[in-house]
Amino acid sequence: MTFHVYDTTLRDGAQQEGMNLSVADKLAIAPLLDELGVGFIEGGWPGAVPKDTDFFSRAAKELNLKNAVLAAFGATRKVGQRASEDPQVLALLNSGAPVITLVAKSDIRHVERALRTTAEENLAMITDTVAFLTGEGRRVVIDAEHFFDGYRFDPAYSRAAVLAAFEAGAEVVALCDTNGGMLPNWVGEIVAQVRADVGPEPILGMHAHNDTGCAVANSLAAVEAGCSHVQGTVNGYGERTGNADLITVVANLELKGGRTLLAGNGLEESSRIAHAISEITNISPYARQPYVGASAFAHKAGLHASAIKVDPDLYQHIDPTRVGNDMRMLISDMAGRASIELKGKELGFDLSGQGELLTRITNRVKTSEANGYTFDAADASFELLLIEEVNGERPPYFAVESWRTIVERTGHRGTDATAEATVKLMAGGERVVVTGEGNGPVNALDHALRLALTTVYPEISAFELIDFKVRILDQMQGTDAITRVLIETTDGHRSWSTVGVGPNLLEASWEALTDSAIYGLIHAGVAPR
Amino acid sequence: MTFHVYDTTLRDGAQQEGMNLSVADKLAIAPLLDELGVGFIEGGWPGAVPKDTDFFSRAAKELNLKNAVLAAFGATRKVGQRASEDPQVLALLNSGAPVITLVAKSDIRHVERALRTTAEENLAMITDTVAFLTGEGRRVVIDAEHFFDGYRFDPAYSRAAVLAAFEAGAEVVALCDTNGGMLPNWVGEIVAQVRADVGPEPILGMHAHNDTGCAVANSLAAVEAGCSHVQGTVNGYGERTGNADLITVVANLELKGGRTLLAGNGLEESSRIAHAISEITNISPYARQPYVGASAFAHKAGLHASAIKVDPDLYQHIDPTRVGNDMRMLISDMAGRASIELKGKELGFDLSGQGELLTRITNRVKTSEANGYTFDAADASFELLLIEEVNGERPPYFAVESWRTIVERTGHRGTDATAEATVKLMAGGERVVVTGEGNGPVNALDHALRLALTTVYPEISAFELIDFKVRILDQMQGTDAITRVLIETTDGHRSWSTVGVGPNLLEASWEALTDSAIYGLIHAGVAPR
Repeated sequence: MTFHVYDTTLRDGAQQEGMNLSVADKLAIAPLLDELGVGFIEGGWPGAVPKDTDFFSRAAKELNLKNAVLAAFGATRKVGQRASEDPQVLALLNSGAPVITLVAKSDIRHVERALRTTAEENLAMITDTVAFLTGEGRRVVIDAEHFFDGYRFDPAYSRAAVLAAFEAGAEVVALCDTNGGMLPNWVGEIVAQVRADVGPEPILGMHAHNDTGCAVANSLAAVEAGCSHVQGTVNGYGERTGNADLITVVANLELKGGRTLLAGNGLEESSRIAHAISEITNISPYARQPYVGASAFAHKAGLHASAIKVDPDLYQHIDPTRVGNDMRMLISDMAGRASIELKGKELGFDLSGQGELLTRITNRVKTSEANGYTFDAADASFELLLIEEVNGERPPYFAVESWRTIVERTGHRGTDATAEATVKLMAGGERVVVTGEGNGPVNALDHALRLALTTVYPEISAFELIDFKVRILDQMQGTDAITRVLIETTDGHRSWSTVGVGPNLLEASWEALTDSAIYGLIHAGVAPR
Repeated sequence: MTFHVYDTTLRDGAQQEGMNLSVADKLAIAPLLDELGVGFIEGGWPGAVPKDTDFFSRAAKELNLKNAVLAAFGATRKVGQRASEDPQVLALLNSGAPVITLVAKSDIRHVERALRTTAEENLAMITDTVAFLTGEGRRVVIDAEHFFDGYRFDPAYSRAAVLAAFEAGAEVVALCDTNGGMLPNWVGEIVAQVRADVGPEPILGMHAHNDTGCAVANSLAAVEAGCSHVQGTVNGYGERTGNADLITVVANLELKGGRTLLAGNGLEESSRIAHAISEITNISPYARQPYVGASAFAHKAGLHASAIKVDPDLYQHIDPTRVGNDMRMLISDMAGRASIELKGKELGFDLSGQGELLTRITNRVKTSEANGYTFDAADASFELLLIEEVNGERPPYFAVESWRTIVERTGHRGTDATAEATVKLMAGGERVVVTGEGNGPVNALDHALRLALTTVYPEISAFELIDFKVRILDQMQGTDAITRVLIETTDGHRSWSTVGVGPNLLEASWEALTDSAIYGLIHAGVAPR
């Protein structure tokens, strides 16, 4: 049987707190979903949300999807109106999307108390809208809203809604746990009953939310009980606790269940695609996300580290390359010497048999982390620490004499502030004094450092600061706060992260900026001049 | 049957990437776990980890637990050594913990390839260590490591390990999905088989990790199949994708399954406790966390907002007060006028029937969010926006003329930088010019603003900046980055969040700082002077 992987990142995912997708964002995400290999991309609600109308109009011209078809989301016709005359329904048709997904009420309480109509009229709304749109040549999916809650309250009515949709020509009825309160055994039982009601042919789908922490398991239970269409979102985005994380659901079904659901080698690209999408949504990736999270295959326990050297497969539930992820050894104050040795190997340093050096590095890591550094998020800074300990010093690209930033705003709210930074340093045997301007103090410091170094090291012009994170540490200790800055820099091909720590935000930023320049120059193969 | 809620936040949770718990942190978290009402608090591995040895020694003197007992985690005796002479085992005894939890191998491949001993010796290690410790009067829990993977490979050996533990006097055998690769139906089947093997009496436990996104569902499946002891961590902390989120597991079992598992009204305190623990671990809370997350009962869709006005119970899977959480309406550019009206009501503004005003506010929210503001994370800034639109202006506490910050470091790495800020403003009819110093520029600006206002508004001395977050927006647009600053301030009783946005980090900070002062003065009942 054909299996549908149906993505609703751009519609239900966009309901997430803090997410705000522009049309350009949606046009950038859709090709990534297509590359992932999903069958359906639900793009939004044309007609109801103006930017979604734009999205479908631009998508038709600008997108060239290879695997997926676009679905427009909307609702069944209004109470008492003809489907063919309902502007909301016509907007769906006019979106040009080949698939139209209609939310339909299937809980009698919602029909009576929220929609304020009769049981019969709601069924007629389903029948009419499905018949109209299929008559116009569209494939129709019904999202049976609040299905499980409704079924537990009045199974006959919820069943009637499903049957009405199929009889009118719907291709799929997706059973929605809209409030997210279901548990896997409840889902399994109800889906099995519905499957028995509708017979073996019609395509039943599952739409889960994670309010009980069971969205993935509920999706799996539904598939086991007879669903062959799963809806979800990349990174589990969605309102409240989010929707089912589509990549996790699919990875479980493919890697544990032996199915092939995504087009191409989608799963092997899934870590990259999940992170690329989080760059666009600007929602920080969740490190603990199953399969694709930065921590998903990261090991820190000293106990494990020594055993992993013996046999990595004993400590991983799957080979991380199956989802495009990597095993990582984390450097932290819980790391034993075995972890440091493995991490060194990962970075090209053979530390085996160098007991004293390993102890020194391990102790320095522990001390630094106690002071607020975090090397598991800043591999580049850890590598510089290794280089210092192994070689006795960092490559002496430059020596800083002083720096200063001035930021000021004269005038009222709305007037722009100005920022400048002056840096004095020695590089290539010359003393350099430069002033850089910027949007803000870190930007000005970055510009000034770059300006000061660019004559001697023109390679630095390829580096670009792409992320900057600030965290206040030690609030609970009652002492003055310490600031930790993480900076991510790219040279256009790869990116690296450095960390700076201190009571002063700009001093911490300066540490991370200079570390980043040094690391970048080392990896550009540049010798100190 | 007694049910064990067994917390391992302080031991397995501490394996999480980026987490670094001091003894003081552990001593601060343990009373919160006790307040939550768990039965067991696993505190660490005394003997193996020096700070865990300290923890148990200080816990015995300093903690006064009402509901929980402490468990010390360790391993079965070494290969070829007597349990009574193994320093690691003796350290567990010397910790004074009434419960000792021993990790024991139960996967024959790990016995042979990682431990490098025989099947028989591993069973003897379990028997000897359990017998020795129970002989010394301790309650013993066995964590059967890699149990499910082992059982799927060689069920007879894994079963033998469980039986050996019970025969030697273990009170509980917790079946561990150490690599986290299980799915709920696999767990259910295997636990049912083990239950049949050991008979109805012995206490079986479940220890799940979230690598398939099913840690919660796996725990529920295990309980359904015969486990009466669940292990997990607050906030799902743990290595890789984390452990089972203990609060989610318990909330499902209590609220959906009708059991009572936590002492006192623990579940009703769980949102507060989960957040308090994240303050100590300094790991940002995950907004989408089930039950206790900041977004768990937050609604943004305009579609829902209008219906929620009719009947909130139709849109929530449980009453959020059952877990000490709240329903929130989110203000965002997807918000319709109904959401804004509801949010206004929440804040004490009756906007019903004021169509034009509502439209103006809704449009301003949409425009601001398009420029980078995020009101769903900054209620105080939203309230100031409401006040401006309702009253035509904010209360004129002060008028800023200009501000400037200078940060400089003369001297090499390791020398402290200095930061100062000069603020010129009018307040109480006087022109004030002050310079404040600080650890960094935001701290200096905060001090200067406070100093400038404190004569006229002494109430401001009670306000304290407690959190400061920075995020770079719009990286994908190719234009210069915009910075968003979120500031949280407290007056000792309640806290509020404000947002500032701009190309300059310090200008954005200044906006959030001044908004925070204005909001705080309004809620302190102070009139402009």
